[in-house]
Amino acid sequence: MQEPAQLDDILATLDADRDGAIARLLDFLRIPSISTDPAHGEDVRRAARWLRDELAELGFDAKIHDTTGHPMVVARSQPGSGRSVLFYGHYDVQPVDPLELWNRPPFEPAIEDTEDGPVIRGRGASDDKGQLMTFLEACRAWKAVHGALPSDLILLFEGEEESGSPSLRPFLESHADDLRASIALICDTALYADGRPAITTQLRGLVGEEVIVTGADRDLHSGSFGGLAANPVMVLAQALGSLKDETGRVTLPGFYDGVEEPDEALRRDWEALGFDAGEFLGRVGLSKPIGEQGRTPLEMLWNRPTAEINGIEGGYTGDGFKTVLPATAHAKVSFRLTGKQDPIKIREAFRAHIRSHLPKDCKVEFHDHGASPASVMDTSDPAFSAARQALGDEWARDAAFIGAGGSIPIAGDFKQILGMDSMLIGFGRDDDRIHSPNEKYNLESFTKGARSWARILAALR
Amino acid sequence: MQEPAQLDDILATLDADRDGAIARLLDFLRIPSISTDPAHGEDVRRAARWLRDELAELGFDAKIHDTTGHPMVVARSQPGSGRSVLFYGHYDVQPVDPLELWNRPPFEPAIEDTEDGPVIRGRGASDDKGQLMTFLEACRAWKAVHGALPSDLILLFEGEEESGSPSLRPFLESHADDLRASIALICDTALYADGRPAITTQLRGLVGEEVIVTGADRDLHSGSFGGLAANPVMVLAQALGSLKDETGRVTLPGFYDGVEEPDEALRRDWEALGFDAGEFLGRVGLSKPIGEQGRTPLEMLWNRPTAEINGIEGGYTGDGFKTVLPATAHAKVSFRLTGKQDPIKIREAFRAHIRSHLPKDCKVEFHDHGASPASVMDTSDPAFSAARQALGDEWARDAAFIGAGGSIPIAGDFKQILGMDSMLIGFGRDDDRIHSPNEKYNLESFTKGARSWARILAALR
Repeated sequence: MQEPAQLDDILATLDADRDGAIARLLDFLRIPSISTDPAHGEDVRRAARWLRDELAELGFDAKIHDTTGHPMVVARSQPGSGRSVLFYGHYDVQPVDPLELWNRPPFEPAIEDTEDGPVIRGRGASDDKGQLMTFLEACRAWKAVHGALPSDLILLFEGEEESGSPSLRPFLESHADDLRASIALICDTALYADGRPAITTQLRGLVGEEVIVTGADRDLHSGSFGGLAANPVMVLAQALGSLKDETGRVTLPGFYDGVEEPDEALRRDWEALGFDAGEFLGRVGLSKPIGEQGRTPLEMLWNRPTAEINGIEGGYTGDGFKTVLPATAHAKVSFRLTGKQDPIKIREAFRAHIRSHLPKDCKVEFHDHGASPASVMDTSDPAFSAARQALGDEWARDAAFIGAGGSIPIAGDFKQILGMDSMLIGFGRDDDRIHSPNEKYNLESFTKGARSWARILAALR
Repeated sequence: MQEPAQLDDILATLDADRDGAIARLLDFLRIPSISTDPAHGEDVRRAARWLRDELAELGFDAKIHDTTGHPMVVARSQPGSGRSVLFYGHYDVQPVDPLELWNRPPFEPAIEDTEDGPVIRGRGASDDKGQLMTFLEACRAWKAVHGALPSDLILLFEGEEESGSPSLRPFLESHADDLRASIALICDTALYADGRPAITTQLRGLVGEEVIVTGADRDLHSGSFGGLAANPVMVLAQALGSLKDETGRVTLPGFYDGVEEPDEALRRDWEALGFDAGEFLGRVGLSKPIGEQGRTPLEMLWNRPTAEINGIEGGYTGDGFKTVLPATAHAKVSFRLTGKQDPIKIREAFRAHIRSHLPKDCKVEFHDHGASPASVMDTSDPAFSAARQALGDEWARDAAFIGAGGSIPIAGDFKQILGMDSMLIGFGRDDDRIHSPNEKYNLESFTKGARSWARILAALR
């Protein structure tokens, strides 16, 4: 156990170096490391180098590992006698379009004053550069007080989280002995509503698919051919529209195999959170949950699987009107998974569904955009109660065990490949607009996030 | 009745001036008069001026009439004692995207040799600049032989046919006394398959709609909100996909009110055409009719109404994957109408259908892109038999009475506003790729088209 006096010194050091920490983060945010866009490949590598240099300067043994995609950055502190811990974050960011909806250039970050207090505005401020930097700043302050980094730390940063992490599993498999620790810390989640600290103990999985339907070898005049020839946009609308029935349930055969109900204790915990769906939706201009009938809003978000169309395009979409039967149409579709749903079976069921809607003359092509099962943590590990206590101390509020609707497949990969449980602790907020224009990270998230990690590192010694 | 010797002279004059006629058409085709694209507004006006100048040089009293959209060109020959005739064509053209699929710049037309003989390649070659020029060339040759234009001709050319003709009805109404004739000739249709001459006696109508569905005030993360928040792309897919049932019938209530079955005589005529749907579809890479069950292919194309999605767009459609719930989605939708279907009722039924699929938190916006009923001609007018004979003489094959799947609302407008029947006679071919890349017009269509008009003008004297 850390001496309380030393923890106080570390927290004071963090407070004193706040401006330095902000400057470092802004520098990091200026690198447009959009992993999904091939045009930004060199920027992603630049972000990896930036991180490697920062870690090396802090005293970590830090290396860039090339993959067939974007590189991994791995850093280690000196060996010691404590419990080993792996920290994970990602240095790549989402695309920024539509660019015209940003209030400032997404890669020219700055502190902005808002009615909720100061925020750091820019792409990646919350997801995930700002979050991962909270841990680095905690390590920096620790070293300033102790003269050395916390021992037995492994830091792993990937650059493909926003594009399906194609290199992650192969990398974990080929570096398993170097990466295995007693527990993992994953910093890519949010505080619970209105700033209550939380540990995410279950996350939905994700299956991503792209589907392209092609009919004639050219766009056809809808007068000359309409009524006789296949229309790929109509085919796709019918196939995708029938993925859900009128009660909001997904219609794929076997889709709900493996979906589990929350146990009574967890159900009571969630009820006690007093989640206000109207308020939550109100922040984005909506008011009413429209998910699966007969489910509470938190169940819809955390414990029920979904089928969504993330993008669709086909035919003439410019000004005016063009009476074509389009030659082709394509869509990006994703499924959020819960419990023990099998992503491979769901991908197969989706493809079979689309094929069953295909008229004879249409062709279909599928592209795999990743698949990961849901993750459900074993919260009986004492690390969970220790971290819960540390978070409660920093934020002066009880920390909650919560679910997350988003997918962090890394947690499942850690379990499956490295045999490690994960604690998912993050300081984002639901209104951070991650994946949307005007992403931000509250300054309080950043500063108290770093202080939280200092406390958790001390509690885990 | 024209002296046969004079008709022969006119036909010989047309043959002798073939190269001059081609050069004039190529000159006209170089003007990118895309009416649906605001960026081409000045080009559309340039095409109107080109036509006015050409007509004036031929001896017509030719004028440009401004409208709130693109201008009308109206030309008149000297008054006489014969039956007055109005000729109609349009000088605007379809957009050209996707540009990369053209084998040459669409507005740098040229004669190309193909296995079907020489063709004039370029946007508008068939629809409708090439077609309307056949009539001008016939008038030119007539004047060369007779020393004067055919009397009692009115020529009307519009520049908004490809963008819903918003100014046409107001113009017909305000100029009714100047435009009314005993019959109209409309040159915007095709020969029947393999070059059999034809008079189109029924055309489908058209309702064009744009629908925009909006949900949240921003794109949402499909993990953080998926399952709870509305997804406008899914809403639109479900609403549009359910426009047709699995038998290919349109599901809108009352949609088939007014649809009429062809009488036995017409049905026999169509059967005698020996339409080969497999061959027709094979030309565009398809093979099998997928329209309404229990209908012949020609019924599907000519006598049955349709519902089609002409374009759809929403969410992320670039490279890679972006797990968003899109804030908005939009589609362009059109209905082809037959018999006495009421376009206004169908527009209303469509809008009601979309609204009935709208979750509470989604908004919808509609844009009207035109509405016209189907046109069914009275073929007992002796002009039909005279024109049928003239066409048969030129092409050495019986001319057919056929239907058309496309919409030429002008025929309905002529009937309704000017009390005139129309004869729809054109020389395009089904493989002309109108509205698609690589539009062409067979050189034979152009030269024999002009000769056909010379014969018809003589027959109608």
